[in-house]
Amino acid sequence: MTPPRTPPRTALRDPKQDRSRATRRRLLEAAVACLAEHGWTRSTVAVVAERAGVSRGAAQHHFPTREDLFTAAVEHVATERSAALRALHVRERQERERAEERGGAEVVGLVGVLVDLYTGTLFRAALQLWVVASYEEQLGARVAALEARIGRETHRMAVELLGADENVPGVRESVQGFLDMARGLGLANILTDDRARRDRVVAQWARILDDALRAPH
Amino acid sequence: MTPPRTPPRTALRDPKQDRSRATRRRLLEAAVACLAEHGWTRSTVAVVAERAGVSRGAAQHHFPTREDLFTAAVEHVATERSAALRALHVRERQERERAEERGGAEVVGLVGVLVDLYTGTLFRAALQLWVVASYEEQLGARVAALEARIGRETHRMAVELLGADENVPGVRESVQGFLDMARGLGLANILTDDRARRDRVVAQWARILDDALRAPH
Repeated sequence: MTPPRTPPRTALRDPKQDRSRATRRRLLEAAVACLAEHGWTRSTVAVVAERAGVSRGAAQHHFPTREDLFTAAVEHVATERSAALRALHVRERQERERAEERGGAEVVGLVGVLVDLYTGTLFRAALQLWVVASYEEQLGARVAALEARIGRETHRMAVELLGADENVPGVRESVQGFLDMARGLGLANILTDDRARRDRVVAQWARILDDALRAPH
Repeated sequence: MTPPRTPPRTALRDPKQDRSRATRRRLLEAAVACLAEHGWTRSTVAVVAERAGVSRGAAQHHFPTREDLFTAAVEHVATERSAALRALHVRERQERERAEERGGAEVVGLVGVLVDLYTGTLFRAALQLWVVASYEEQLGARVAALEARIGRETHRMAVELLGADENVPGVRESVQGFLDMARGLGLANILTDDRARRDRVVAQWARILDDALRAPH
């Protein structure tokens, strides 16, 4: 083990900067929650500021325009999703090392966990932004770039988690199609609680995916 | 064959009623196109009326509120999608009768055609409504009921088209999961043209689905 390093002089904490960072983070999290619950139309800077317990002036200091706030919120969504996926990956790897071997039952569990990433608040917020970005040109380019980055990262994680070998022809598309299914299942959960149906679909498709990854076409 | 019936007296065509129906249809189609292109926020009754070439007064005569207009437009989307699916079904059945037998290549083609239903204007409009209905309570109940109806009809069509036997355990969930994937592929196409990737995913998953339907788990 390496000894803990003493913090460099520039990293000394500045209480004012800390407060500013905390305010910024509260605004971003409020923006994500607002988007997920109330959609784009009702998610104004004023509504987000009130939810965050921040003055409108302070909100506008951090994010001069509505687009700035929600673009930064997309970044925040992306970072949170990434962190959740990384944490999941580490846990799964530890469990795999303890079990020493992978089996079909494990793939079924992994498929369920990956699908769950598309049914929470982060997916709801991302979906709202995705849909609005389809006709809001300025937002569109930024969100498209972000989504491409998230898509690549999610794919990489899924490949690692599932222990898939992308050198085998078809395996890359098998994993991609599975993530498209997960996205579709997330969308099906937006209007009504779709859990019962989703659980049955996940159980069936986890078996199909497991076969496809073991005996690729 | 039964002989054609003479129309009852009340069905005699009324030019004024015909014009009214045509106006109504123009408004519904303009509403769907507006939603798909510009999203909910910018799709006001005034914008739709202008696009349809109808006075705002006439639009408000047909649809007193914005919710009335877009709820009716959802109905219209549902009917159009249904008609498209039925036409597809008839064509496919005719082709199947000509070929006299089904094979793997046919399932690959059918999977592509079913996925294409989720990449056009109707899906874009439905997606906008779906997402808005998730936080607009009044719209929510109506759209949820409609989507459930469309979902059941789409599933029934897919089962018929693919020649799937739902009495076999797992087959129902295989078809459901495939339609979730198609929905996810539609969503992936909203921000960027995803055709090249989608074609590869469809080719791979058509083979996997064909196996799953022939040798169910």
